[in-house]
Amino acid sequence: MARNIHAGVIGAAGYAGAELVRLLAGHPHIKELSLGSVSFEGRPLYELYPNFLRRINPALVKPEEAAAAADVVFAALPNGVGEPFAKTCVEKNIPFIDFSADFRFGGDQAAYRAWYGMAYQFPNLREHAVYGLPELNRQALRERAGTGRIIIANPGCYPTAASLAAYPALARGMLAEGTVIVDAASGITGGGRETARSFHYPECADSLSPYKVGCHRHTPEIQRNFAAMTAKGGKAPALIFTPHLAPMNRGILSTLYAPLAGNWRAGPADPMRPPSPEAAEKERALQEAYAAFYQNEPFVRVLPAGINPATGRVRGSNYCDIAVRLDQTGSFLIAVSAIDNMVKGAAGQAVQNMNILFGFDETAGLEAIPASF
Amino acid sequence: MARNIHAGVIGAAGYAGAELVRLLAGHPHIKELSLGSVSFEGRPLYELYPNFLRRINPALVKPEEAAAAADVVFAALPNGVGEPFAKTCVEKNIPFIDFSADFRFGGDQAAYRAWYGMAYQFPNLREHAVYGLPELNRQALRERAGTGRIIIANPGCYPTAASLAAYPALARGMLAEGTVIVDAASGITGGGRETARSFHYPECADSLSPYKVGCHRHTPEIQRNFAAMTAKGGKAPALIFTPHLAPMNRGILSTLYAPLAGNWRAGPADPMRPPSPEAAEKERALQEAYAAFYQNEPFVRVLPAGINPATGRVRGSNYCDIAVRLDQTGSFLIAVSAIDNMVKGAAGQAVQNMNILFGFDETAGLEAIPASF
Amino acid sequence: MARNIHAGVIGAAGYAGAELVRLLAGHPHIKELSLGSVSFEGRPLYELYPNFLRRINPALVKPEEAAAAADVVFAALPNGVGEPFAKTCVEKNIPFIDFSADFRFGGDQAAYRAWYGMAYQFPNLREHAVYGLPELNRQALRERAGTGRIIIANPGCYPTAASLAAYPALARGMLAEGTVIVDAASGITGGGRETARSFHYPECADSLSPYKVGCHRHTPEIQRNFAAMTAKGGKAPALIFTPHLAPMNRGILSTLYAPLAGNWRAGPADPMRPPSPEAAEKERALQEAYAAFYQNEPFVRVLPAGINPATGRVRGSNYCDIAVRLDQTGSFLIAVSAIDNMVKGAAGQAVQNMNILFGFDETAGLEAIPASF
Amino acid sequence: MARNIHAGVIGAAGYAGAELVRLLAGHPHIKELSLGSVSFEGRPLYELYPNFLRRINPALVKPEEAAAAADVVFAALPNGVGEPFAKTCVEKNIPFIDFSADFRFGGDQAAYRAWYGMAYQFPNLREHAVYGLPELNRQALRERAGTGRIIIANPGCYPTAASLAAYPALARGMLAEGTVIVDAASGITGGGRETARSFHYPECADSLSPYKVGCHRHTPEIQRNFAAMTAKGGKAPALIFTPHLAPMNRGILSTLYAPLAGNWRAGPADPMRPPSPEAAEKERALQEAYAAFYQNEPFVRVLPAGINPATGRVRGSNYCDIAVRLDQTGSFLIAVSAIDNMVKGAAGQAVQNMNILFGFDETAGLEAIPASF
Repeated sequence: MARNIHAGVIGAAGYAGAELVRLLAGHPHIKELSLGSVSFEGRPLYELYPNFLRRINPALVKPEEAAAAADVVFAALPNGVGEPFAKTCVEKNIPFIDFSADFRFGGDQAAYRAWYGMAYQFPNLREHAVYGLPELNRQALRERAGTGRIIIANPGCYPTAASLAAYPALARGMLAEGTVIVDAASGITGGGRETARSFHYPECADSLSPYKVGCHRHTPEIQRNFAAMTAKGGKAPALIFTPHLAPMNRGILSTLYAPLAGNWRAGPADPMRPPSPEAAEKERALQEAYAAFYQNEPFVRVLPAGINPATGRVRGSNYCDIAVRLDQTGSFLIAVSAIDNMVKGAAGQAVQNMNILFGFDETAGLEAIPASF
Repeated sequence: MARNIHAGVIGAAGYAGAELVRLLAGHPHIKELSLGSVSFEGRPLYELYPNFLRRINPALVKPEEAAAAADVVFAALPNGVGEPFAKTCVEKNIPFIDFSADFRFGGDQAAYRAWYGMAYQFPNLREHAVYGLPELNRQALRERAGTGRIIIANPGCYPTAASLAAYPALARGMLAEGTVIVDAASGITGGGRETARSFHYPECADSLSPYKVGCHRHTPEIQRNFAAMTAKGGKAPALIFTPHLAPMNRGILSTLYAPLAGNWRAGPADPMRPPSPEAAEKERALQEAYAAFYQNEPFVRVLPAGINPATGRVRGSNYCDIAVRLDQTGSFLIAVSAIDNMVKGAAGQAVQNMNILFGFDETAGLEAIPASF
Repeated sequence: MARNIHAGVIGAAGYAGAELVRLLAGHPHIKELSLGSVSFEGRPLYELYPNFLRRINPALVKPEEAAAAADVVFAALPNGVGEPFAKTCVEKNIPFIDFSADFRFGGDQAAYRAWYGMAYQFPNLREHAVYGLPELNRQALRERAGTGRIIIANPGCYPTAASLAAYPALARGMLAEGTVIVDAASGITGGGRETARSFHYPECADSLSPYKVGCHRHTPEIQRNFAAMTAKGGKAPALIFTPHLAPMNRGILSTLYAPLAGNWRAGPADPMRPPSPEAAEKERALQEAYAAFYQNEPFVRVLPAGINPATGRVRGSNYCDIAVRLDQTGSFLIAVSAIDNMVKGAAGQAVQNMNILFGFDETAGLEAIPASF
Repeated sequence: MARNIHAGVIGAAGYAGAELVRLLAGHPHIKELSLGSVSFEGRPLYELYPNFLRRINPALVKPEEAAAAADVVFAALPNGVGEPFAKTCVEKNIPFIDFSADFRFGGDQAAYRAWYGMAYQFPNLREHAVYGLPELNRQALRERAGTGRIIIANPGCYPTAASLAAYPALARGMLAEGTVIVDAASGITGGGRETARSFHYPECADSLSPYKVGCHRHTPEIQRNFAAMTAKGGKAPALIFTPHLAPMNRGILSTLYAPLAGNWRAGPADPMRPPSPEAAEKERALQEAYAAFYQNEPFVRVLPAGINPATGRVRGSNYCDIAVRLDQTGSFLIAVSAIDNMVKGAAGQAVQNMNILFGFDETAGLEAIPASF
């Protein structure tokens, strides 16, 4: 039977940290919670987030203190800041679940350095790191359970949405050679708690815009996932990734375009005609393949025909909703995925990873049905 | 010197119609305005749109009446409804500017029928139809000026945004063979004034979702434009088009992905590295080619490097803002365009077409600087 | 020890019904759930609300069927529709929790008829009705526990927010004679699931407006509550109530202005000067009185000085946050309250009422911490 | 005949400044525009606001330079910064139109100091100051026309909305003694361009909250206006003013409650009954009195019965829409006003003031019909 544990959170004052606190506070196996912050030490969390009034009372402590007595440590810190804490945890055999990009690239320090402009502080720590996308690495996570010496690199928000939309196609060899395009948009909490021009209400409300076109840091992370997800003997497709900023608080919607292998295609279409009956049939086959692939996943919902994913329909939940479509030319898979960037894209996925590691029910603390509106 | 004219509007009570009234009411060469409506005949426009209080006083009249004394007739009607009015206008030598899809397919009735599920009522009318995308067909519009016997098929909103983003690449032969992907999102006015589940505030607010994936009616219109825009001897690319619904009132943001011809590409990139200096240089070349192509266009702004398009930055104006980027693999053009769907995507473009036809300054009545927020 | 029960919901397809289903599905003492709908019988709830996919699978049944085997029946129906169901439940000794206005006026049929334009169908049912504002009527609810013969009139959303902001002042005799003004705004879910012009996204987004000024149906309900809350021997104040529609999904913010009795006032202020130190001291006294009054209430949070209520800070929760202020003239109480209209203003309060009635922990199923953003 | 003039803007980079530039750029009598900024000197305005691309090209200059050759100088600066510029302009006989609070209190330096925490730098400048609410002070503005020695204190946004809603009642002696309550909400542009926690998108989106309850700086300004508007021999009412922050970009909605004098009241109402026919009649009388009072005002629209004001219906325009209602008790006037805080609440009103001063048509450059959505 699952024991109850003490969780420490470093960086509890940021958006991902605060969402994590909200989830852990309702988790059936968390018996104690220590919250640390560099910038807001000594202040109660409800001063920053009045929603926590009466619910989370103790003042934030120093990060070290938050980690001291914990059975698991979560770090929701900026890139490049958390390594010393990770080192301490590894040395003390305490699992460390990290929200930053610091451990997502494993041994490929050169890629990390190229995109993030920083060097690893303790490169050897990567030997303990597992990329924490449960749908991809559940087995690797389980194997580490109990050892303690583990750093879970919690995935980025865009990579979670994009990779889950691609995984069945890559793993089942459904794609032809070619480029995969991921066009995605995030709600504005994705930018974090720090105020900035781009996230000043009047600058982003009621407006939609792209950013970092052709150069967003999540590109290599998605690319790595594509490689890990591609069936043995297959070749991972090249990736084009464009993020946008959408005028909403939460959510990522990701639309993926990938050229299908011959047997998954519909016959060549007249570009001036609507999809043929054959195309509709092929689309059903794609949907079924996706549904079969994910049938045992607790948080991936392959949507039935006729339902489109919407960020508003996963709000507050750990679900990733995926719609599978065939384009009108009959040759491309269009897989659209929706997640709550703060939950499946950050804090919820971290809790899911903890659940796996500690042998809790994987959905423990993540049972919330998404809001209806 | 430009004379002043009398404009008739049929379908003034819909969203596109109301926006047209707003623009025509401030147009320097409109001396009189007759507003017609099937459903709201006898009621003043300000009862439906109180913003018009004190500014547009007369009650709406029957469509026929609105057209009777006009020098130009605009029809902002549902598909399949306006043909009889068009016929009358053509017979009376009055230019007819149509917002529906009825005249966008010219002689290709089969395509229209396949996508819109209706037959032409008066097929011969198409011999008078010109597709009213001024950047593409300005010359054809000018040639008809003065004859009167003209139906202008005002373009769809998505086709306007997508086609303008593709035009320089197609016309200058910048693309390799392959599929062009257009991933676009519209504000909710795009759904029109009729209430519907999808546009009920709580169902679409704070949420982003795709719709009609692989089967939206604007697909063949964009495809036609690509064919018309492709340099002689070239082959128009196949198109994949996915629309989304974004939680905002106005605006379309369209992101286009197209494989570049060899000389426009950067050398093959390591997918795990950021764009190379060579890629940056190639990107500048793309931008310059676009800027040169559109240098005389009054309403297309090719954005300088460092500025991203945003629907909020064209709000209320007839501009189409375009950013030109190279993807991180060095081989795809990414062209992002932003328009106000109600202006350049509908009423503003109709006024621009009228201006060309009547020899007015092309920007007359369309001088509004976009709102800053 | 609390037994687990079977809950029936009639009107599960509306907004309040769907929110109730979301809450009941996570309630620790609900062992079975039957969902009924007149309009959508035979269809699963997730077709209307895809957020329920995989979580609520059975098709909606006829209302009678939903009520048949239930230990408690909730009715989230339009006014005037639920009486026959209430009658059946009373006859079968099954508690009936009603979201409509039908039972809120008790014996005062004349008031109901005047505002709602309908007569009672079974007037005698009112002898079993208790107005279900737990902070006011917890004792009366507890007294009925176990008898079964009870109809709980679940309060309106505005009346909940306004009445809780007034209660301590009325009960403790803090007010002078005079008029109390309640100026409130609701998110758009308050209008329900039916599409309507006023709730069509482009008509209400990014805009704020009043409606039914001086004639909203919640006026007499608030007025009744004021009477019930006024200390014995006191005279209930007259009420002015103005509702507004705010461009957001959820939430009610209510700002109440009430003339203070002499001992609660600060000395007469120079209207051209900021609040005096004495005023600040009096404001603290008001805050303390409110905090003391509500100290044992699980869902009312009297905010500490320096924190303002915000609908975004109670989102998804059953809290009513209240700030207590003194106006700048030193003579009026300003009490601002925030609730989630769908939770404390509807479904959450109904669950709270059920908890009291069945002797469950009053917060069971309502433990959600509000979202941070 | 009106000559064309050269306008200088100091503080062009802020939100009010940018909106002013947008309006002046389309003004028929502005032949030249000089734009100054302390913080962004040397940079073109379109770098901050890409909507100005191609339309406003010159780089921002030093404030002194922007004022040097101007026929009129607008200052959109923080409080306490503009006095030296005002002094120079007065000395050079150039009208100075000031957006700050520095000149709104005239000789009452004590009030200014008490609320704004600063002393006047050049107290004597106030002898040249006129409070620029045209509906109140048009005559005083006209009398100064031509002299040059004038500082126009452009009103605050809330004071504009609240005062115009009160003016007819105060001037015509329609009120009984007592307190007037103004409950208002502003869009988030009201907070200006500086980033701040409160205006960070995720903190204010989809949420409604009050702020500075009982202590907002616009209180004494409204109080002063009430005094100036009250009929001779009358006594200005005391004011309670509560501002709120609403999740929208533009607009102020202000709801005013004022006790009516006996002859304007309906007979005493049963609080449990809807408004009586007599009340409806009295309400019409109130509406007619307001309509008559404002009949010649170009920018005040007293709405016909059945139309409610909405910030979305004045967006982008200089209108102030006012609805006049009687409360359900028959004894209070409820006057609800809507303005665009950036136009009638700031830049538009400044242009209106300039038009009056220079003898231009009062609506010149302000003819925009509000957006329909």
